[in-house]
Amino acid sequence: MQTELLIHADWVLPVDTSNATLEQHSLAIADGRIAALLPRGEAEAQIDSAKTLDLPGHVLIPGLINAHTHSPMTLLRGLADDLPLMTWLHEHIWPAEGRWVDQEFVADGTRLAVLEMLRGGVTCFNDMYFHAETTARVCAEAGMRLLAGMIVVDFPTRYADSADEYLRRGLELHAHYRDHPLVRPAFAPHSTYAVSERPLARVRTLADELEVQVHVHLHETRDEVLRVLREHGERPIARLDRLGLLGPQLVAVHMTQLEEAEIARLAETGAHVVHCPESNLKLSSGFCPVADLLDAGVNVALGTDGAASNNDLNLLGEMRSAALLAKGVAGRANAVPAEQALRMATCNGAKALGLEEEIGSLDVGKAADIVAVDLGDPHTQPMYRPCSQMVYAASSHQVRHVWIRGRQVLRDGAPLTLDPPAIINAARQWGERIAED
Amino acid sequence: MQTELLIHADWVLPVDTSNATLEQHSLAIADGRIAALLPRGEAEAQIDSAKTLDLPGHVLIPGLINAHTHSPMTLLRGLADDLPLMTWLHEHIWPAEGRWVDQEFVADGTRLAVLEMLRGGVTCFNDMYFHAETTARVCAEAGMRLLAGMIVVDFPTRYADSADEYLRRGLELHAHYRDHPLVRPAFAPHSTYAVSERPLARVRTLADELEVQVHVHLHETRDEVLRVLREHGERPIARLDRLGLLGPQLVAVHMTQLEEAEIARLAETGAHVVHCPESNLKLSSGFCPVADLLDAGVNVALGTDGAASNNDLNLLGEMRSAALLAKGVAGRANAVPAEQALRMATCNGAKALGLEEEIGSLDVGKAADIVAVDLGDPHTQPMYRPCSQMVYAASSHQVRHVWIRGRQVLRDGAPLTLDPPAIINAARQWGERIAED
Repeated sequence: MQTELLIHADWVLPVDTSNATLEQHSLAIADGRIAALLPRGEAEAQIDSAKTLDLPGHVLIPGLINAHTHSPMTLLRGLADDLPLMTWLHEHIWPAEGRWVDQEFVADGTRLAVLEMLRGGVTCFNDMYFHAETTARVCAEAGMRLLAGMIVVDFPTRYADSADEYLRRGLELHAHYRDHPLVRPAFAPHSTYAVSERPLARVRTLADELEVQVHVHLHETRDEVLRVLREHGERPIARLDRLGLLGPQLVAVHMTQLEEAEIARLAETGAHVVHCPESNLKLSSGFCPVADLLDAGVNVALGTDGAASNNDLNLLGEMRSAALLAKGVAGRANAVPAEQALRMATCNGAKALGLEEEIGSLDVGKAADIVAVDLGDPHTQPMYRPCSQMVYAASSHQVRHVWIRGRQVLRDGAPLTLDPPAIINAARQWGERIAED
Repeated sequence: MQTELLIHADWVLPVDTSNATLEQHSLAIADGRIAALLPRGEAEAQIDSAKTLDLPGHVLIPGLINAHTHSPMTLLRGLADDLPLMTWLHEHIWPAEGRWVDQEFVADGTRLAVLEMLRGGVTCFNDMYFHAETTARVCAEAGMRLLAGMIVVDFPTRYADSADEYLRRGLELHAHYRDHPLVRPAFAPHSTYAVSERPLARVRTLADELEVQVHVHLHETRDEVLRVLREHGERPIARLDRLGLLGPQLVAVHMTQLEEAEIARLAETGAHVVHCPESNLKLSSGFCPVADLLDAGVNVALGTDGAASNNDLNLLGEMRSAALLAKGVAGRANAVPAEQALRMATCNGAKALGLEEEIGSLDVGKAADIVAVDLGDPHTQPMYRPCSQMVYAASSHQVRHVWIRGRQVLRDGAPLTLDPPAIINAARQWGERIAED
């Protein structure tokens, strides 16, 4: 077999159906896809590769998938901390966004986010923000995979002045990116409290027509649920269910407030949940019942949320927080074991984003979205189980190499498609302007 | 003023009484102590220093204090995960320790722990393990500050065969290190379930006599509390109170099960609590009511616990977990704000360990235990508040320089008193031996 690159690694966690850890295996890339995954001896005998890369002490994992973020909000990182969701949103974040968010803000904020995520082994993210066409352009240029949110809210911003206008701009984005190899559009109605019934119903119709996912904040806090119940006579999940939005296209983010029947209904309809443990803790939003959802058969992915409520986009750390918190919340130490946490950060994310045929595991034929992590640091020694070290001990700075669709975007920890000094300089300038205001 | 070293930094978080963030300040070191902390211009005018170090983009903080760990357990990192406390202890950890723990294990495990902690900005730790004289020797050689636990349990190990023998070995350690500049002994009776009443009473008498702290696992799980209640007719805290052990010498670790009256009693007696959020989550031990304890006036410090139940010794990450988890548990997003979390990891730790006159803040006259962190990474940009970036976004690999008692032990991320390749090699060999067993 002829391939472009053959990578030898001490360990591979393919996150396929088996939860296996492969030792001394080799992964071959050709035409942007995984061409082979074989024991090293067999690979060396069978594969004629243009390039080889030997990675002793490294583990290969599928690229991490950040299934919920607002990437340009990196520019608001640390602006307002230690506040509950509604105070934080109404008194700090929305005013700052109203004042500052334009295409330039989104371009610079997205670049900072993509730089941070590539360095941390994230190869795909699901974004919800204004000026998504700018986020899409930055990702396409950087070689980053993106589910670009066609955002919808009722209130006017500098981006659009009505729900119809948001939808119109979203459809433009869709027309532009529908066949792009890395950027895929998805509807992103903000929430059932910020988007009224008519635009939600239109999202439903259009999502069916265009066959795209629908990404929404749902049951994030008790206040949200009570408010929608008071104003509309039904809980947010019931509202989406009535509108026909509860199904495999739904990417429901947060879900800290769930009754048993709601969990059963999520499982029945095939809706996906994105768990954002650090944001939920930081805003004191509540605890998502992750172990119960998984036990019921619901697909649960992981997201960092935006950097203003986390405050990083480190999915490796989020995976660890998810594994730890689930045990505390479920009251049993075998809840979300390491292998399950890694699945949530990879193949479950791919499923939620409707990309499971393409990414999420190191199966032959899938896109070569691959991360190599050096486990030689003192805090990941000695080595009993690579998956345990990845989830419970490794840090994102141990991510050494990243490929997306077969293209190397990080080499020895350095990004190949971005200019870090320029990005950091632009972020500093935004920080100074916003702080002075 | 003549000093040995003058450090210029963009920001200083002195963690003194004020919660201030100082900009463009300089810190001078002489005779192992902080000789001055002044605005840069004043420092340059007044101080004649043998050496200067310019650290643009860095923040100086007091050395982090890991107030509870079992350092040699780094060698068991990842051996057994996703199990509850008692299964984990009885079926995995205690058998492995019985088989393997000797002086060589303790020396190699402590070195790995000290390497990890120095790289992560920890300058002092409170340890509980067998062969503590070996841990003390390793720390003295590495220039690391240590509260060395004179461990006591009822059951025999290769270290000692009875509670009396543990105490005898502890007193030997005390005699050797009582006047050491970095190593200070403390009693470390394991818990009220592993140490019976007579040795606990002796610890009380000896601790008063020798004026040392008493470090104990307390109310770690509901099972522990119920078992002691069943066997002794009182809850563990009540037992220690009756024995006269509840007071400013007590360093009570975990404390996930607390009634209101117990919190009041802790506050009244001046006992210290060490919160280990990640270990409590991982073993599903329960949630320490940190915000309630702080509100009641109890001093709460932070610990990582051992690497077999965390699985790292990263106190910076633990500080973040503590700040996030406290909000979720208290149900309010202003619980344990960033400044409070930093205090828990520094001056509260110093108080708990009886070292508040010596370390825990960057006050003039205290020992120069200082950490410089580079906040120039993408994930700590832009800069609104340095304390927010330290607690909610910084990673331990951003720790660049560490001084303990004025001696530099980490320079540009590289340890000056330890041999990393030899330490990692020894850890690998232990890992292979233990895994084969």
